[in-house]
Amino acid sequence: MGSESTFTAQKRISSGLPTTAAAANGVRGRAASVIPRGRQIQKTFNNIKITILCGFVTILVLREAEAENQHLIEETNRILAEIRSDKDPTDPDDPTEEFLNPNVTYTLGPRISTWDEDRKVWLQKNPEFPNYVNGKPRILLVTGSPPNPCDNAIGDHYLLKAIKNKIDYCRIHGIETVYNMAHLDTEMAGYWAKLPLLRRLMLSHPEVEWVWWMDSDALFTDMVFEIPVSKYNDYNMVIHGYPDLLFDQKSWIALNTGSFLFRNCQWSLDLLDAWAPMGPKGLIREEAGKILTANLKGRPAFEADDQSALIYLLISQKDQWMDKVFVENSYYLHGYWAGLVDRYEEMIEKYHPGLGDERWPFVTHFVGCKPCGSYGDYPVERCLKSMERAFNFADNQVLNLYGFRHRGLVSPNIKRIRNDTVTPLVNVDHFDIRHSVHLSSGSRS
Amino acid sequence: MGSESTFTAQKRISSGLPTTAAAANGVRGRAASVIPRGRQIQKTFNNIKITILCGFVTILVLREAEAENQHLIEETNRILAEIRSDKDPTDPDDPTEEFLNPNVTYTLGPRISTWDEDRKVWLQKNPEFPNYVNGKPRILLVTGSPPNPCDNAIGDHYLLKAIKNKIDYCRIHGIETVYNMAHLDTEMAGYWAKLPLLRRLMLSHPEVEWVWWMDSDALFTDMVFEIPVSKYNDYNMVIHGYPDLLFDQKSWIALNTGSFLFRNCQWSLDLLDAWAPMGPKGLIREEAGKILTANLKGRPAFEADDQSALIYLLISQKDQWMDKVFVENSYYLHGYWAGLVDRYEEMIEKYHPGLGDERWPFVTHFVGCKPCGSYGDYPVERCLKSMERAFNFADNQVLNLYGFRHRGLVSPNIKRIRNDTVTPLVNVDHFDIRHSVHLSSGSRS
Repeated sequence: MGSESTFTAQKRISSGLPTTAAAANGVRGRAASVIPRGRQIQKTFNNIKITILCGFVTILVLREAEAENQHLIEETNRILAEIRSDKDPTDPDDPTEEFLNPNVTYTLGPRISTWDEDRKVWLQKNPEFPNYVNGKPRILLVTGSPPNPCDNAIGDHYLLKAIKNKIDYCRIHGIETVYNMAHLDTEMAGYWAKLPLLRRLMLSHPEVEWVWWMDSDALFTDMVFEIPVSKYNDYNMVIHGYPDLLFDQKSWIALNTGSFLFRNCQWSLDLLDAWAPMGPKGLIREEAGKILTANLKGRPAFEADDQSALIYLLISQKDQWMDKVFVENSYYLHGYWAGLVDRYEEMIEKYHPGLGDERWPFVTHFVGCKPCGSYGDYPVERCLKSMERAFNFADNQVLNLYGFRHRGLVSPNIKRIRNDTVTPLVNVDHFDIRHSVHLSSGSRS
Repeated sequence: MGSESTFTAQKRISSGLPTTAAAANGVRGRAASVIPRGRQIQKTFNNIKITILCGFVTILVLREAEAENQHLIEETNRILAEIRSDKDPTDPDDPTEEFLNPNVTYTLGPRISTWDEDRKVWLQKNPEFPNYVNGKPRILLVTGSPPNPCDNAIGDHYLLKAIKNKIDYCRIHGIETVYNMAHLDTEMAGYWAKLPLLRRLMLSHPEVEWVWWMDSDALFTDMVFEIPVSKYNDYNMVIHGYPDLLFDQKSWIALNTGSFLFRNCQWSLDLLDAWAPMGPKGLIREEAGKILTANLKGRPAFEADDQSALIYLLISQKDQWMDKVFVENSYYLHGYWAGLVDRYEEMIEKYHPGLGDERWPFVTHFVGCKPCGSYGDYPVERCLKSMERAFNFADNQVLNLYGFRHRGLVSPNIKRIRNDTVTPLVNVDHFDIRHSVHLSSGSRS
């Protein structure tokens, strides 16, 4: 496009400027329109010279403009990087890039073997911090994102909306929230970061009965549904997946670690310890990735991820772990977004919140969209639109108490659905989810 | 810089290319170094022609490059705008831009006059939703931001960090949180949006005793300090400010509406109703702004803002309201950032969390930084660096329980401050803020 303009410009300008040859040839007195052949050839060569010159100039100027824009972007990043690069002068430990020696077995921490007894004693001594409140076990929802701004500017906006979504669900259901933005263990960076985090939170919050990890790209879309915790009285881990995919097909997507629960107990600490060894970044993680790709169906070749590693662990050590793992698929503890987001209008028409399953998914999980990073697996427009829809589908359920809903599933604007009233408490009784008769305990209705 | 390169390029290229005039003049057989005067003038004019041509080309190409970058930005915004512009085909109410008729008095909603009695009856009927829990009144923290991405990309990242900061404080102190991203009343856009929101939340959450509004650019920096609620048993509003600035000087910054509490009661509904009339956007807000500028010391000329309007209201109707308003300055319910952020290291050295005042500020409020918008009142670098410091200063107090702190007040990286242990409960007893003896009730220690 730049080149066209250049040539267009040349033509326009050439025709506008006076023929300097004619002006200079005032001495010869010839009319501008009668030009000798030698002169014509000379003019042609001059025009070629101009064209080549301008071509070079165009290239140089384009590079300058690109460099200037790049400079602006770099300047902003420089400000941030400079701010964050200040080292603590009293800190002798320089956080240089080191990879764990493959000959040293990685551990999440010193081995604890008496957690159940220790925790039980602590709970007895601290009755003001019970692990059950109003008959319900105390749940801690854990999520997070890296400490730096997203590569893609829009990513932070969707992280913000996703945490608002989780705040709403947790407020309605009396669940505590931790939003982590720190790397507790630089060996276990990326998706592995949840392992040291989960361990640390269990050990620091003995009053918590269940720790629930949820990815930052997963949204609650059923604001009424509650996890049927009594179903899991004899289990220590609840994870969405399919047993046949797990044990028969050994598929690398048999389970989803984007949303799962761990009971705060010795068994969970042991599982985390057994799960962790494939995680340390560098050679260990790369080599582990090869093992996983070789053993799990459909797994592409890449470094070990926590989900594949867990699947491999549970397959390999089935007898040791599976009696305490509940592989749940009667509701969408994790709901893969692509099959759900286009059906929200149909759901609104036919069903109601509280079902948690394919009729009204508990969680819609935007696997592969990666709004925070540079390279998602799906077109950006499709992901953004779908995330907007899921967010608003959920937000409508929250706004219902206040008498509003979104104008459309892709609209940030809201409108009244109930007139304001001088007796607002009638609406509270009717519409507050916590009072709602739809509070599900896993039963289909 | 572009122009220099252009001319440098011209010189470099001109000296490299063969003199086509000499080549074309092979007919005449003259040597290139002996050039007649007429020819020299002609060459000069040709060079001028080339220079002008290239100048035009430079301008055109620069505009092309700029247009291309602008196109990329616009494309991203287009995707988002397109996604969000879909209207609900069943919605006849087109949200067009309308300003309230100045002859019609704006109201937040139908007048409610029996809220205290209605709420009391409701609480009696709903003992499972008490307004006091473990002897403490139930508090709802309300904050929020507009539904669209920030003008400035970094803004969403700081909104995210700010809500994480609030989540941490609220989890530690058993406070519920609402993060609002919806315009409940388009008349009351901008800073006025909190008024309809506060009314709606009071009426929809009768179980809440205090509603606490906090700006998105305010951070908790004392994770131990608690609001001394018993101090306010006889009051219905708690706001940071200075009585002499308010009544003697009538200063437009005598109070700060970036962080204040309303008791959920009839008096608060009445105050909101009295406060609202200057808010409706357009002519009303503009005219009201002139009144405020004329009457409040130091106020620049701009449309009515909620803070100035409240100050004006409380000055004008002092006898009606002030007996129930506590103007608090014994701790930093709102702490203006510029005087605080450079002293964090000194505070760490000399003091401890739990004080809430100038020694260890409860809240650090980044008034004027506006990271979400395009035009702040302070240099960007200063604001970003200061917000990082405040965030990490607070985060250190949260990470303390887990055995970590930031490597420096501007570093996103953390490091261990305690070795991991097989007896983690000892650390819980010692470091969990909720167990801490420092839990303040407003007393200086």
